[in-house]
Amino acid sequence: MKVAVVGVTGYSGQILYQLLMQHPEIDAINLYGHQDTEGDVRQLGELVPALNGLTAPIMPFNADEIMATCDAIFFATPAGVTKELALPMLMHDFPAIDLSGDFRLSNPASYEQWYHQTPASQGLDHASYNLADLSQPTTNYVANPGCYATATLLALAPLVQGHLIDVNSIVIDAKSGLSGAGKQLSPTSHYVAMNENLQTYKVNQHQHIPEIVQQLQQWDATIQGVQFSTTLVPLTRGIMASVYAKATQPVTTAELEAYLTKFYAQQASIHVTPGRFPSVQEVSHANLCKLGIAFNPATQTISVCAVIDNLMKGAAGQAVQNFNHLFKLPVDMGLPLFPQMP
Amino acid sequence: MKVAVVGVTGYSGQILYQLLMQHPEIDAINLYGHQDTEGDVRQLGELVPALNGLTAPIMPFNADEIMATCDAIFFATPAGVTKELALPMLMHDFPAIDLSGDFRLSNPASYEQWYHQTPASQGLDHASYNLADLSQPTTNYVANPGCYATATLLALAPLVQGHLIDVNSIVIDAKSGLSGAGKQLSPTSHYVAMNENLQTYKVNQHQHIPEIVQQLQQWDATIQGVQFSTTLVPLTRGIMASVYAKATQPVTTAELEAYLTKFYAQQASIHVTPGRFPSVQEVSHANLCKLGIAFNPATQTISVCAVIDNLMKGAAGQAVQNFNHLFKLPVDMGLPLFPQMP
Amino acid sequence: MKVAVVGVTGYSGQILYQLLMQHPEIDAINLYGHQDTEGDVRQLGELVPALNGLTAPIMPFNADEIMATCDAIFFATPAGVTKELALPMLMHDFPAIDLSGDFRLSNPASYEQWYHQTPASQGLDHASYNLADLSQPTTNYVANPGCYATATLLALAPLVQGHLIDVNSIVIDAKSGLSGAGKQLSPTSHYVAMNENLQTYKVNQHQHIPEIVQQLQQWDATIQGVQFSTTLVPLTRGIMASVYAKATQPVTTAELEAYLTKFYAQQASIHVTPGRFPSVQEVSHANLCKLGIAFNPATQTISVCAVIDNLMKGAAGQAVQNFNHLFKLPVDMGLPLFPQMP
Amino acid sequence: MKVAVVGVTGYSGQILYQLLMQHPEIDAINLYGHQDTEGDVRQLGELVPALNGLTAPIMPFNADEIMATCDAIFFATPAGVTKELALPMLMHDFPAIDLSGDFRLSNPASYEQWYHQTPASQGLDHASYNLADLSQPTTNYVANPGCYATATLLALAPLVQGHLIDVNSIVIDAKSGLSGAGKQLSPTSHYVAMNENLQTYKVNQHQHIPEIVQQLQQWDATIQGVQFSTTLVPLTRGIMASVYAKATQPVTTAELEAYLTKFYAQQASIHVTPGRFPSVQEVSHANLCKLGIAFNPATQTISVCAVIDNLMKGAAGQAVQNFNHLFKLPVDMGLPLFPQMP
Repeated sequence: MKVAVVGVTGYSGQILYQLLMQHPEIDAINLYGHQDTEGDVRQLGELVPALNGLTAPIMPFNADEIMATCDAIFFATPAGVTKELALPMLMHDFPAIDLSGDFRLSNPASYEQWYHQTPASQGLDHASYNLADLSQPTTNYVANPGCYATATLLALAPLVQGHLIDVNSIVIDAKSGLSGAGKQLSPTSHYVAMNENLQTYKVNQHQHIPEIVQQLQQWDATIQGVQFSTTLVPLTRGIMASVYAKATQPVTTAELEAYLTKFYAQQASIHVTPGRFPSVQEVSHANLCKLGIAFNPATQTISVCAVIDNLMKGAAGQAVQNFNHLFKLPVDMGLPLFPQMP
Repeated sequence: MKVAVVGVTGYSGQILYQLLMQHPEIDAINLYGHQDTEGDVRQLGELVPALNGLTAPIMPFNADEIMATCDAIFFATPAGVTKELALPMLMHDFPAIDLSGDFRLSNPASYEQWYHQTPASQGLDHASYNLADLSQPTTNYVANPGCYATATLLALAPLVQGHLIDVNSIVIDAKSGLSGAGKQLSPTSHYVAMNENLQTYKVNQHQHIPEIVQQLQQWDATIQGVQFSTTLVPLTRGIMASVYAKATQPVTTAELEAYLTKFYAQQASIHVTPGRFPSVQEVSHANLCKLGIAFNPATQTISVCAVIDNLMKGAAGQAVQNFNHLFKLPVDMGLPLFPQMP
Repeated sequence: MKVAVVGVTGYSGQILYQLLMQHPEIDAINLYGHQDTEGDVRQLGELVPALNGLTAPIMPFNADEIMATCDAIFFATPAGVTKELALPMLMHDFPAIDLSGDFRLSNPASYEQWYHQTPASQGLDHASYNLADLSQPTTNYVANPGCYATATLLALAPLVQGHLIDVNSIVIDAKSGLSGAGKQLSPTSHYVAMNENLQTYKVNQHQHIPEIVQQLQQWDATIQGVQFSTTLVPLTRGIMASVYAKATQPVTTAELEAYLTKFYAQQASIHVTPGRFPSVQEVSHANLCKLGIAFNPATQTISVCAVIDNLMKGAAGQAVQNFNHLFKLPVDMGLPLFPQMP
Repeated sequence: MKVAVVGVTGYSGQILYQLLMQHPEIDAINLYGHQDTEGDVRQLGELVPALNGLTAPIMPFNADEIMATCDAIFFATPAGVTKELALPMLMHDFPAIDLSGDFRLSNPASYEQWYHQTPASQGLDHASYNLADLSQPTTNYVANPGCYATATLLALAPLVQGHLIDVNSIVIDAKSGLSGAGKQLSPTSHYVAMNENLQTYKVNQHQHIPEIVQQLQQWDATIQGVQFSTTLVPLTRGIMASVYAKATQPVTTAELEAYLTKFYAQQASIHVTPGRFPSVQEVSHANLCKLGIAFNPATQTISVCAVIDNLMKGAAGQAVQNFNHLFKLPVDMGLPLFPQMP
């Protein structure tokens, strides 16, 4: 198979490209740029010299050419950019995995509210938001979930679907390394501003909130919202979503661990860590999600701790899972399932 | 005045010593060790070479001598050690500030449960737990609050005392740098284990939980417990306590900011940051607590973010505040109130 | 005394401002901006919110007003900016400490070569480059040394002046944290680019090379150049200069340590660490330089390791020392001499 | 093929195990412990829980059994331990790759001097030290080079073999992350001691010095020693060796780059980076060495900057290369040649 990747110079794009190079069913990868300044063919090794001077050309984006020559396309482009480029793929039901947020929200008004941009003019009904470990995409255009949303929803799915928690009491406190924010330069991304620091940002306004709520409502229509906070922590890769909710009935930690283990028994990339909460190092550079869970009798609260590598399970790795789904391949094909420690 | 410091080689002890050297009312500082191996007089500059080879002697602990020659004593000794040493001071109502947890809990059974040690055999009723920014100590022996407890309680005090939150819905997600865990070597404290990592530990079992609950219950007797989690993050100094609770009635963020600002108007070391949540860098190396607050109408939840430097407001700095209280000095005397940035 | 500070929003400016606030001989500090956009009066607390919302005004730069109302001025402005602003002070011999590189090189051609800018049109002969621990300024306008140059020259001064090394064999391998590069955003300063990385930059082209050579030549006119490299390391504050040179005659490490100790016996802010090389943490947040030295009989090489806090001894701290010199105050007045550890 | 790994719980052992799991010619990996406490069979997933609870047994070390059932053995055991275990393999010429320092030095007196231990009682002449990118092992027992030695020698080989430098002027300033020092707990390895710090250690006494000199002397018998320093920097993985030496004759940077590129033209895992010095991030998690080079006319000095991942090219990766050599497989088989960035 031959696939196209748009946006290879970003963090997710780079990781995605390396994953695809190792994928046993993929023979060729065509790279495409998305900026006017990339009107000419550029060399990947010139734009990202660290990649050993690789001589892969980055060609100007051309939807027709891509659909004529490739079997699928990956958009590793920023929100706002994808919605301009992807329309031909959406209209032709061409297999596409979109890592951006442009087609995740089925309600255009919601997109406008949270992304502060005009939503896609059409095509929303041709796209399906799909958590690769929980379902199969229902359309050929897959909106790959956001990194925070992935960790949060994998933690909440068993609890909400099993009616174990009061859904109006959910509190999510997420922590993330800096690579999740991308390569853009800002006062916040400066090394000196981030090193030896913790910074909570976009209080009650993070754009992953609506996709979390949208998905939760499909599992339990009574859910109205979730309390969700995000704090930047000084590391490059890794997300920890700490989820708290009141239990609907008394339960033990051991029962919760057994339930979670059973819930994810078929998912080779999801592991429960009985007796302890997992650390982000345990999923580093791997397409894993690890989950710890505990019940606190003093407060009748269930805590779940979900850790992922934001560039793997939170972006490129899950994108490959969704690609595998589209082509009926084993869901974990081509993906590393062991953490790289230390 | 002349003061004694026991345990100067620990992190809190070192910081405390430097603060006391700059305190305008303190003329002399006597240093005392607490270990058998310190039976002989040692030099500080020999045990902590980085301190410029300072020739301050560290003498064997001798309660009678200390009470005869000094005006006050600081215990920067670990929990378990202080309770053995401090009894003479407790029995004689000698001015003492105890940075350890040994006399924080008025209920000995609670100490045994959370510290996994035998409680102090006597003296608990001669000690008072005192948050220096909220009250005056009622005894000459002051149990200085723990670092997590300080951040958490400064965030919760206005909300609980003002009946703004449902006290049974409180969730605290605290993050801390490594210096809070002290100098002891453990697999967790190894650089490689902590760098590029996040690790939630002592789930529902942290020994600061009972002192938080004990204090909250003095403000609102109906409180039964709090949901409290602690995550180690890769930085040396700094604690962020993220506190969530359901509002008892609709409110706005601006109203909450105004209320908090008024609540702490007399405390020069506590600052509210309107319109944003503070970062831990903003309190680095200073005896500050900064607070951000927000109301989320979608979930009827109030979030508060409290940041402190765990070795300053969370330990040595607050100890000096409590010392100032004992001697009727201005509460912030001798303490730095500006962050050292970057 | 009243002093003026231009450029308070940069890293060095912020630290300088805090040092001056604690200086016992300084009663008032006037702040001045240097950018067109700062034509209006701004509030420091608005530009640097982390500074507790401080209500100090930042006024538009006005040389005449400053000379009329202040006793001295500090330029914490970037190279290129200072040379435009400082001329009136130079022409009037007004006491000034300049933290930038604009008046460090007495040879304008050298400035042009290394700074890639037009040199100052006049005034070079009214300025004196002065390492505060080695000499007194000879003019009222003091060109404060660069951070790398300070560490390097404090390491080399005893060896060159004592003719202990072959001056044509000098190799300097300097390592620096990121704050030395200032607040500007660049791909290199992005957290993700610097975290878990080491990056050697400006190979043989760093602009501190000519000031090092200029100073060395005053000590030994036969010196033609030095091999100097700089590597960015993932920390915020701290410089380590590792200096290597062939010994002119056999010597022992103990002799070298004794010689260095004697050489700097009068400098309270310079410490030799016998038997070990100092770490940068040992000078953190203090106006210190620590030096370790060793002789290797296998290679006849002397190694010196000099560590400083680049924002203190490498910038703001030394600037205050030079201010103290200008006004015949004790050289270390107002400066912290203990490291803040951890 | 079936291979044995001794010492899988250390950093190098863990990485080695993961590399071997992906090696196309290896079907089975037997794990062996080396400590008395590992007398019983243990589970890898129990000793290293982060490895997904993997159910691979770690068996007590048994040389005869290993030689009877496996095709080769890897020793990822510490210096001092290997020399006790490896004798049977040495005596039987059984294919072995030894990551420790026990058989690197052909002179037992040198081992005693630098390792402060009794050398191996016999077998030194059955072992060959082999830099996998420069030669083939001459015995079945391969002493895999140390991490610092690998970076240093790959930088120096072209210069020494090409007589481009004065070999008595060589200065090596190496920087390393903490994983190179292994898992042992020490005051130096504590997170707080290493974070925001730089620490030069073992001045003129690092045990990799003699293997560097031993190898250099095989290339140029006139070399008597090298000036070599090592500084710990706050990162987990990565070594940068900065090498300086006087040129024997004038040369240009471009000529040096061309020479280096040609010298390593056949090595797919060694890359020259023309026009810039490589960063350690560029080799992260890959079995790469990248080299930058420059000539400084002002000092007649050649600088080379070599970067490797200390656990890959500096340990486990090169061990696999030497394994490939022993079995006449392509040298880079099974090894990642792209950095994992970010």
